[in-house]
Amino acid sequence: MAVPARDALQFPQSSRNQINDYIPRPGQTSKKPHVTLTFATSLDSQLSLAPGVQTALSGPESKAMTHYLRSRHDAILIGVGTAEADNPSLNCRIEGVGGYGGEGLEGQPRPVVIDPNGRWQFSADSKVLKLAREGKGKAPFVFTRAPIDAVKREVLGSVGGQVKVVDPQNLTEGRISWEYVLDVLKHEHIESVMIEGGGAVINDLLSPRNIGLVDSVIVTIAPTWLGKGGVQVCPNERVEKGARLPVARLKNVKWMPLGDDVVLCGLPGQE
Amino acid sequence: MAVPARDALQFPQSSRNQINDYIPRPGQTSKKPHVTLTFATSLDSQLSLAPGVQTALSGPESKAMTHYLRSRHDAILIGVGTAEADNPSLNCRIEGVGGYGGEGLEGQPRPVVIDPNGRWQFSADSKVLKLAREGKGKAPFVFTRAPIDAVKREVLGSVGGQVKVVDPQNLTEGRISWEYVLDVLKHEHIESVMIEGGGAVINDLLSPRNIGLVDSVIVTIAPTWLGKGGVQVCPNERVEKGARLPVARLKNVKWMPLGDDVVLCGLPGQE
Repeated sequence: MAVPARDALQFPQSSRNQINDYIPRPGQTSKKPHVTLTFATSLDSQLSLAPGVQTALSGPESKAMTHYLRSRHDAILIGVGTAEADNPSLNCRIEGVGGYGGEGLEGQPRPVVIDPNGRWQFSADSKVLKLAREGKGKAPFVFTRAPIDAVKREVLGSVGGQVKVVDPQNLTEGRISWEYVLDVLKHEHIESVMIEGGGAVINDLLSPRNIGLVDSVIVTIAPTWLGKGGVQVCPNERVEKGARLPVARLKNVKWMPLGDDVVLCGLPGQE
Repeated sequence: MAVPARDALQFPQSSRNQINDYIPRPGQTSKKPHVTLTFATSLDSQLSLAPGVQTALSGPESKAMTHYLRSRHDAILIGVGTAEADNPSLNCRIEGVGGYGGEGLEGQPRPVVIDPNGRWQFSADSKVLKLAREGKGKAPFVFTRAPIDAVKREVLGSVGGQVKVVDPQNLTEGRISWEYVLDVLKHEHIESVMIEGGGAVINDLLSPRNIGLVDSVIVTIAPTWLGKGGVQVCPNERVEKGARLPVARLKNVKWMPLGDDVVLCGLPGQE
């Protein structure tokens, strides 16, 4: 094993044991990839103070947990809004994975960006592409229905990334169908995907139409109120026989205090 | 001690020990009553599926906790919306308090209803007044600026309740000033008040203008998403020098799993 990188994160075994029931087992396969939905909110269920603004919510322990989760999934997926706002690394920096003390790209998830209209203005300097070039992460797959110009296609391809062009038949109300995305990932031998955000992606997956695709949920809650005007996690309403019902309730619930935050693990269900 | 009532609730000593740091000590006095803000939300920070609709969110353990908290406060306060929607009992049913195994009205908090425009249509049949008549709770104080008719005044007065008429000078933008309410309660020898809801009251107290009046916060979170359209806890934004900041962050945080829910205790502060 190579020397651990100085910026490698640690997540203790006792904490790992607590969440391992909610993430795919190594080697686990199924007809579709295991979907873990994970994000951090304030007490008023907000991801950030405003669209496009990165807001520090959760503490260092939660960050280490996120990277541990990344090491246990074949892919991590975000929407274009997050890719544009955060210039994210989308790699795994837990001690022992490839680039952080481990060999090759072992334990590094495939970044996946959902970008229906080709808004993401990435370049060779974008963090995720730099890290791929340095052997500290994989290059992204970008799902889009828009034509991608040759320069961007080349930037992506040179480090092993791909553009996945989506046919109109795989769009639902302008959105790329989740069934289609999961199907494509499965064909790429991706057996598990951790979906990290942002608001539009999370709310769409929590909606009554899509929540059946989510296998487990891991939410970090920070003891802060951000106040009106932020990006809120709040799915569309569920109405059955004219009556409103809760959209989803988690089963097999575990609450795990972590630093000043709490981590909620559960399996989605409906009442 | 009288025989415990069959409907008395139990809250174990181990759980009491966990939250006792966040509630007033017996005999504690200060210039203003100790304010404990307490409520239960969904993961999307909602109190109910729609205005005026009671929504079962938290489990039986949280209910027992609420009643324990009531036994440890001199008053419990709600807004008129909750009084109208829920026909609430507003008494304490924990085993050992007056009416539930204890003597007289020992451990029974004073209900306080904030009703600026005299909307609350109570009668002798309202639960809170029936319980007062049966010696199982105290009669409410109602804060209002509107004239209260003689019949309602009589219904209230016959069981020891009072109307507190508020002068226009104690209104801020149509709302009754919290400083004034707390001042009146202090003159009634009420040293602690537990504020339970609903949305308008909670959001007003969490707002940058009022949060300094809140001494401790006890929030129960249930592992459910209610979806858009419900009554949301989300205070007004805080802007300083043109920049948005989090409205409040809790200090001395404790997360206590309780049944399927989690209870968050903390002391409000600003970053």
